[in-house]
Amino acid sequence: MQVEDLILISVDDHVVEPPTLFDAHIPAKYKDRAPHIVKGPNGGDLWAFEDGFAPNVGLNAVAGCPPEEYGLDPTEYAQMRPGCYDADERVRDMSAGGVLAGINFPTFPHFCGQLFLRAKDKDLALASVRAYNDWHIDEWAGSHPDRLIPISLPVLWDPELAAEEVRRVAAKGARAVTFSENPTKLGLPSYHTEYWDPFLRACADNNVVVCIHIGSSSSMNITAPDAPPEVMIALTPVNSLMAVTDLVFSGIFKRIPNLQMALSEGGIGWLPYALERADYVYQHHHAWTFTDLGGRLPSQVFYDHIWTCFIDDPVGVKLRDQVGIDKIMWELDYPHSDSTWPHGPEKLFKDLAGVSDADINKITHENAMRAFSFDPFAIRPREKCTVAALRAEAADVDIEPKSMGRRKAEADSGNASLLGSVAATGSSGQ
Amino acid sequence: MQVEDLILISVDDHVVEPPTLFDAHIPAKYKDRAPHIVKGPNGGDLWAFEDGFAPNVGLNAVAGCPPEEYGLDPTEYAQMRPGCYDADERVRDMSAGGVLAGINFPTFPHFCGQLFLRAKDKDLALASVRAYNDWHIDEWAGSHPDRLIPISLPVLWDPELAAEEVRRVAAKGARAVTFSENPTKLGLPSYHTEYWDPFLRACADNNVVVCIHIGSSSSMNITAPDAPPEVMIALTPVNSLMAVTDLVFSGIFKRIPNLQMALSEGGIGWLPYALERADYVYQHHHAWTFTDLGGRLPSQVFYDHIWTCFIDDPVGVKLRDQVGIDKIMWELDYPHSDSTWPHGPEKLFKDLAGVSDADINKITHENAMRAFSFDPFAIRPREKCTVAALRAEAADVDIEPKSMGRRKAEADSGNASLLGSVAATGSSGQ
Repeated sequence: MQVEDLILISVDDHVVEPPTLFDAHIPAKYKDRAPHIVKGPNGGDLWAFEDGFAPNVGLNAVAGCPPEEYGLDPTEYAQMRPGCYDADERVRDMSAGGVLAGINFPTFPHFCGQLFLRAKDKDLALASVRAYNDWHIDEWAGSHPDRLIPISLPVLWDPELAAEEVRRVAAKGARAVTFSENPTKLGLPSYHTEYWDPFLRACADNNVVVCIHIGSSSSMNITAPDAPPEVMIALTPVNSLMAVTDLVFSGIFKRIPNLQMALSEGGIGWLPYALERADYVYQHHHAWTFTDLGGRLPSQVFYDHIWTCFIDDPVGVKLRDQVGIDKIMWELDYPHSDSTWPHGPEKLFKDLAGVSDADINKITHENAMRAFSFDPFAIRPREKCTVAALRAEAADVDIEPKSMGRRKAEADSGNASLLGSVAATGSSGQ
Repeated sequence: MQVEDLILISVDDHVVEPPTLFDAHIPAKYKDRAPHIVKGPNGGDLWAFEDGFAPNVGLNAVAGCPPEEYGLDPTEYAQMRPGCYDADERVRDMSAGGVLAGINFPTFPHFCGQLFLRAKDKDLALASVRAYNDWHIDEWAGSHPDRLIPISLPVLWDPELAAEEVRRVAAKGARAVTFSENPTKLGLPSYHTEYWDPFLRACADNNVVVCIHIGSSSSMNITAPDAPPEVMIALTPVNSLMAVTDLVFSGIFKRIPNLQMALSEGGIGWLPYALERADYVYQHHHAWTFTDLGGRLPSQVFYDHIWTCFIDDPVGVKLRDQVGIDKIMWELDYPHSDSTWPHGPEKLFKDLAGVSDADINKITHENAMRAFSFDPFAIRPREKCTVAALRAEAADVDIEPKSMGRRKAEADSGNASLLGSVAATGSSGQ
C-alpha cells in the first residue's frame, strides 16, 4: 500500500461553532438568551451565555496558521481558516488533506458541554444542548453524511435527562456522545458510583460510543506555574491514562456489558505499560482491597470496552497488538495545534512502515467504521475515498500556511502565565 | 545466561528506620528532641517529632506478609520482618532473594525528608538530617559496604545548606541523594528557577546522583475519593512521567551539564511514548513559546541526564533501546507491597527473555555500578555475587509468607477512604 491509497477516517477533529449555530434550532422562547457571539473588549469573538463568556482560544484554530502566530489570545473568525467553522470549507480542507471523514468535537461548550453544566437556568441549558445537537447532527454533519460523523453533547447535570437525550439523538443517527474523562473533577459523582448508569445504559442500548476527550474533566496536569507551556501540552495524555485506570477498576463494565467508550486525543504508546501496570497492581492488591472485576484482568476490561486513537505515535503503532489492533483508530485533530494537517497521510504513513495492509486498514478506517456504525461507502464509492482521489477533488485548495494577522508571539510575553486559566477551562488547545 | 547467574543490584529498596537511629549520631543538645518512637493510641509504632507523628504505614513493610494482611494501618516493629529495620537481617533477606546490593530510601522522614522541611526548629531539623545521614552512611550501609549503597537526605529548605551537606556526605562516600520529583508541590521553588542550582551543582561536582522517588512531591494522582486503592497505586508512575516532562523542558541541564538524576520506582515502559510526545510538542510549539533547550531535543536531554529503573516491566524491557539501555537499572522495592521479593530473580528473568547477555548485565548491575560509582567486586569476589551464590549463603532464611498478626482486610473496611491522607503525606506504600 502507498500513502495515496490510504482511506482515512479521523475520530478526533474540532468544530469552531459558527455564529449562526442556534438560529434555526433554539425554541423561540429562548432565542434572546441562547449563546451568541459578541466582540471581546480586547479583540476576539466570544460566545456570551448568561453572565459569562467563552472565547475561541487561538490554539484551538490554528490550521494553516504559521507557528509564530500560535498563542492563547482569543481569536476572531476572520483570523481563522473558514474550514474551522464552515462545513463545506471543512470538507474541502479534509479533501485537500486526504481525509475521508471526521468526528468534530465541540469548542465553545468545552469538550463535553461543561459550559451548560455551569448554567444557572437549567431549562435554558437543556434547550441549548438539544439545539446544539440538532444543529450538529442535522446541519453540520448532516450536510455531508459521507464525510462528517455526528457526535452529540450530553446533559451533564442529570443522568435520566442524559439518557433521554441519547435516545433522541440516536434515533436521528448519532452513534457517539462526548462525555467527561472524570466527572469527579466537574463536581459530579465519580465512575465508582451507579449514578451514571441510566445514561451509560442508554448509550450501550443504542449503540452510542461514549467518547472521553482529554480536557473533558476541565483539568490539566500542571507541574509548576512557571513551567513552559510545552510541559502541560506534553502531559495531556495523562488525562487519558488516569481515565483508563479509573474506568478499568470501576464496576461500570460489569454492570453494563455492552458499553463501549473511546479515548479521544489520548495517544496509544503508553497503553501497553499502563495495562501491564494495572494488571500487576490488581494481582498484588486485590486480596486486601476486595476489588472484583468479575473474573477479568483490568487489561481485558480495557480490550473489551475501550477504543483508542492517535495522531502521530510511532511506538504505539509498533506495539499495536498490545494496544489492541482491533480498536486503534487515527485522528487528525484539525484545526488544533497538534494537528498534522495538511500532511496527515504522510506523517501517518511514516508510523505505518512495516505494518501489514490488513492492520493499516483497521487503523485508518475499518475500526472507526465499526466503532461508530459508519459506512461512507454506501454513499461514496470506495475508490473515491482514497487520499489520492480526495486530493484530486480539492486541487484548488490553498494549503500553504499564511499569516492570519494575529499577534506574533514574543519572548517573555507571558504565555506561561496564561496556562493556569486555560487549564481551568479545559480549553487547552492541543 | 540462566537465572542463577544473574548479578542483581536493586536501586530502590526501603529502610524502616530502627528506634535507635539517632542514639549515636545526634548532638547531645538535641538528644531529647530528636525523632523518637512512641506507641500510637490505636497501635503501631510512631515516630514523634516536634508536635507531630509519622507512622510506619503497613503497606511500607509487607515483605513476607500474606496479602490478606496488607493495609494502611500503622504497624509495629514486631509485625514486620526484621529485614525491614535490621541491617544484618536485611542483608540475609537480600541473599535469600538473590540480590547482591541495594539502595535504601528513607521511610519516616518521607521519601526526600519532607518531615524535616515542615519542622519549625530548623536548627533541630538540620541536626536531624545530618544525624540521619551519618547513621545511614556509617552505621546502616557502612556495616555492609559490599551490599548497601548509601543514599543521603537533602536539606530541603536551603539550597546552600543542601550543597554543603552534599559535599559533606560525598566526602564520606555517598554517591546518591534523594530529592523531590516536584519541589513546587512541597511549596518550594520549581525546577524552572535557578533556586536549586547551588545544590544541584554540588551534586554534579561531587558525582552524586539526584534520585527522585515517586511520592517525593508528597502528592499522588487521585481520580476520585471513592476509587479503589488500585487506581492510585497503578497511577504512581505518573509522578515520574510528570517529573521527566518537567525536567527535560527546564534549563537545569543546560546550566549544569554534568548533572545526573535518577527516577526511582517510576517504571520504564511509558518512557518511549513520553519522549516521543515531548519531542513532538517541542517541535510543534517552540516557535511561539521560545523554549530553548540548547540545540537538543527533549529526548536527548533525557538520555544524557536521567537514569531509570523498573521492578517488573515487560514492555519496558522490550523497548529497552528507546528507554536508553545504558541507563536502565533494576529494583526490588523491598519491603514494599509492589516488591517481587523473594522471587525477584525469577520475575525479572521472565522479562529478560530474548535479551542479550550484554544487555542483561547492563540492566542487572553494570549500569547501577556506573551510576553510583559502586564496585562491590572490590570487596566480594564476583563469583560470590550471583543469585545462586547468595542464595546458597542464606539457605537457612525462611522466606515463606506467614501471618504477622496484623488486622486482616475486610470488604468495606474503608481502605479507600484512607487514601486521601496517604496521598497527602506521600507515604503511599507501593
